[in-house]
Amino acid sequence: MSNLEDRIREIERQLSAAADREAIRELPAQYCHAVASGNGPAIVALFTDDGSMEGGAIPAIGQGDILVRGRAELDKTYGEATSDMRLRPFIHNHVIELDGDRATGKCAVEIRSVRDGIAYNAAGYYDDTYRRESGEWKFERRYLHIDFWVPATESWA
Amino acid sequence: MSNLEDRIREIERQLSAAADREAIRELPAQYCHAVASGNGPAIVALFTDDGSMEGGAIPAIGQGDILVRGRAELDKTYGEATSDMRLRPFIHNHVIELDGDRATGKCAVEIRSVRDGIAYNAAGYYDDTYRRESGEWKFERRYLHIDFWVPATESWA
Amino acid sequence: MSNLEDRIREIERQLSAAADREAIRELPAQYCHAVASGNGPAIVALFTDDGSMEGGAIPAIGQGDILVRGRAELDKTYGEATSDMRLRPFIHNHVIELDGDRATGKCAVEIRSVRDGIAYNAAGYYDDTYRRESGEWKFERRYLHIDFWVPATESWA
Repeated sequence: MSNLEDRIREIERQLSAAADREAIRELPAQYCHAVASGNGPAIVALFTDDGSMEGGAIPAIGQGDILVRGRAELDKTYGEATSDMRLRPFIHNHVIELDGDRATGKCAVEIRSVRDGIAYNAAGYYDDTYRRESGEWKFERRYLHIDFWVPATESWA
Repeated sequence: MSNLEDRIREIERQLSAAADREAIRELPAQYCHAVASGNGPAIVALFTDDGSMEGGAIPAIGQGDILVRGRAELDKTYGEATSDMRLRPFIHNHVIELDGDRATGKCAVEIRSVRDGIAYNAAGYYDDTYRRESGEWKFERRYLHIDFWVPATESWA
Repeated sequence: MSNLEDRIREIERQLSAAADREAIRELPAQYCHAVASGNGPAIVALFTDDGSMEGGAIPAIGQGDILVRGRAELDKTYGEATSDMRLRPFIHNHVIELDGDRATGKCAVEIRSVRDGIAYNAAGYYDDTYRRESGEWKFERRYLHIDFWVPATESWA
C-alpha cells in the first residue's frame, strides 16, 4: 500500500509542478494581450501587490529608467502608458525555473509600436521573478533589457 | 481505498486537461508550418468539418473580408491561397481556456510574406475556438484581426 | 489492486512524456538565450557529444554551407561565431514528436543580427532531432533552413 501511496504522492508533486509551469508560461502572454489591448487594470492584475516593472532608459521614445513598484505606481503608470502609445509585444524563448512558491524566468520580446505617428521596432528580453499569491502565479518583478528601439524605417545597427 | 481512488481520478482529470492544452498549443504552430510549406490539405485537416476561417479585409493585398466556412470552402480557399503567395506566419502569446470538448484561445501572429515580388510585414492576432472531434483537437473557428499589413520597406504607422 | 496499479503505471507514462516534451520545448529557447548572450560553452552543452549543427549557405553574410559535427567542432565554431556577430534569434511554432529516447521537432526562427555595422533580418526554420543522454534531452542534430537573410533596410522579396 505505501508503495502506491508514495507513487501517487510523487505523481501529485509532478503534476502540481507542471501546472505551475503552465500558469507561468501564460503570464507573459497574458501581459502582451493586456498591453496590446490597452487594458491597464488587466496588466496590473498580473503583478503581486508589491510587484515591480523595471528597466533601463529607452532614449528613442524619451523613456527614462523604468522603476514602477507596488500597486499604486503600477496603477498610475499602466493607466498612462497605454494611452499615448500603440504597443504590440511578442514573447519568445520563454524558459522557467521553479522554486516552490517562487520562480524565475527569462523571455525575449519583440515590440512593434507607434508613438506620435512613428512606427518603431524593438527587441530585448525580460528577467522575470514570479510568485504564487493566494494560489495564483503573478509577476513579482520584471526587468526589461532593451537591445534596440528604433524607427521602423531605420536599421538598428 | 476510496481515498486513493479519488486521488487517482483527480490526477487523471488533470493529466487529461494538460494533454488537451498541449494538443491545442500545437494547433496554431502546425497551421503555420502547413501554411509556410504551402500544404493546403494539411491546413484543411486542422479544421473541423464545419470549421471556419474568418477575418476583416486586408486592402494592401487586395483581400476582402474573409469568410471560409466548411470543408468544401476550406479546400477551395487554401488550395488557392498557397499558390500565389509566399507566407511565413509566426505565432506568439498563445493563451488557452479549456471548457470540456471545446476551448477558446488567443494568439498573436506576425507574418512575413511576398506577393507579386513585394515583401510585406503584418501583425495581428487570432481569436480561436477549438473543438475535440473523434478525440482530436481541431480549429472550429479562427478569426484573424490584422493590425497592419504593409510593404516591408514602409513604416506601419 | 491491479486496476489501480495499471492506472498509476499509465499515469506515470503520460507524466514522463509530458516532462519530456517540456524539456524539449525549452531546448531551442535555451539555445537562443545562449546565442544572444554569446555564451559558446552554454550553446555546446545543449548538443549531444556527437551532435551536429547543419544548414545551407547564407551568402548575405559570407556563410558557406554549415556542417559542424561533434564536440570539438562545436566548441571551435560556437566559440568563433559569437565573437564577430550580434545575434538575436527568436523561436516560433515549435512542434514536437516523441519516440522514446529520441524525438523530432520543427520550429521557425526569426533572427535580428548585426555584422560589420550592418543590421540584418532573417527568417527560416529548424528541423531538429533530440536525444536523451544521461537523462537529459539534447540536440542530436539541427538543420537550419534559411528563407531569407537580408539587410534590415532592404526588402526580402
